[in-house]
Amino acid sequence: MKAIVAFSGGLDSTVLAYQCRDLGYAIRLVSFDYGQRHRKEIKHAKSIANLLKARHDIIDLTGLGKFLTGSSLTDAIAVPDGHYAAETMRITVVPNRNAIMLAALFGIGVADESDYIAIANHAGDHFIYPDCKPEFIGAFAAMQAKALDGISDCQLLAPFMSITKDAIVSIGDKLRVPFEKTWSCYKGGEVHCGTCGTCTERIEAFELSGVPDPTIYGMKISTDY
Amino acid sequence: MKAIVAFSGGLDSTVLAYQCRDLGYAIRLVSFDYGQRHRKEIKHAKSIANLLKARHDIIDLTGLGKFLTGSSLTDAIAVPDGHYAAETMRITVVPNRNAIMLAALFGIGVADESDYIAIANHAGDHFIYPDCKPEFIGAFAAMQAKALDGISDCQLLAPFMSITKDAIVSIGDKLRVPFEKTWSCYKGGEVHCGTCGTCTERIEAFELSGVPDPTIYGMKISTDY
Repeated sequence: MKAIVAFSGGLDSTVLAYQCRDLGYAIRLVSFDYGQRHRKEIKHAKSIANLLKARHDIIDLTGLGKFLTGSSLTDAIAVPDGHYAAETMRITVVPNRNAIMLAALFGIGVADESDYIAIANHAGDHFIYPDCKPEFIGAFAAMQAKALDGISDCQLLAPFMSITKDAIVSIGDKLRVPFEKTWSCYKGGEVHCGTCGTCTERIEAFELSGVPDPTIYGMKISTDY
Repeated sequence: MKAIVAFSGGLDSTVLAYQCRDLGYAIRLVSFDYGQRHRKEIKHAKSIANLLKARHDIIDLTGLGKFLTGSSLTDAIAVPDGHYAAETMRITVVPNRNAIMLAALFGIGVADESDYIAIANHAGDHFIYPDCKPEFIGAFAAMQAKALDGISDCQLLAPFMSITKDAIVSIGDKLRVPFEKTWSCYKGGEVHCGTCGTCTERIEAFELSGVPDPTIYGMKISTDY
């Protein structure tokens, strides 16, 4: 069975890639460059793909990305610090990103005769990103079944849809994922900043899971859960 | 109300743009360059946009298009002649094209605070393209409602979904659409070839509607309906 993994080089999609390989799938990793500030993650993605000896393609969507304004990931707006929260993190939403990425991946999946498209969205994302919720995943899968009727049976896999990031860290630990090679920080500096929403979430996930965190942070703020 | 029109410069999407303007919407036209052979249609799109005095953006998706292999529209496979038929036209399908284009348009629509995304798929397309069928349109609209929950109320418009191309020609005739400026031919030569599936369909639509066809064809084969 062939699986294409939506692969950012972040913690979640890296664990997903390792899990798909562990399930025996022939994996192909696909990253998207939509002009986001944390392009650095693409370098990390390449290094992890090499470890996995998996084909890794980077799809240039910068021609589209420049029209998807309104997000601090692609625009010159400051990335907010602190815990993920609706008010501060909403501006990190790239409009319709998951629908765009998944539709592109299904197109590639048809051309590649893949069996699965895998995405690593998880329960912790639901709070702020509607396109990470199970309701979206279900509706997207239903849409693709109509779009590819008679053409392809490629299916959507979202195995982390109902679990939180600390559970993903635990799964990754069992699969011996090289966490130190993954990149989460939205700021894209030399090391993880330790203060943006996604760094805060990463720090918490390791603490909650009890798995040692090998990440080097510029500054580690206290978490208040 | 603001509407973004998926605009190829072909007959159907040109009539749709004129209809949206006639309905009083502020229209923005968006074309996609995914490396298709009939890029010539983009020049026609630009000229029609100028007539409509509408903003026209061309989204460069060539970085994605090169991974969507298996179609004669993007590969070096001969475009088949003759009437649209499942066996010969299947190879003109760009995998998942409508889902990709519509997802991109909804992303732009959110950034642009648009009210509608309009697409000109019609009943004649259903026979071969699953992503032109009403079932797909309904499922896509449902997916976007989930993806953009709390972010945008942008809606999908597909007013030609249940009518055939000759009815679109009749609507265009009433709206004084400059049909001679539209481009349909998949071969992308100096003039419409008159023999490929989409030229055959264009010729038939004018004949069935009784509207004079201003198109110059390289060769006009007889239609057998």
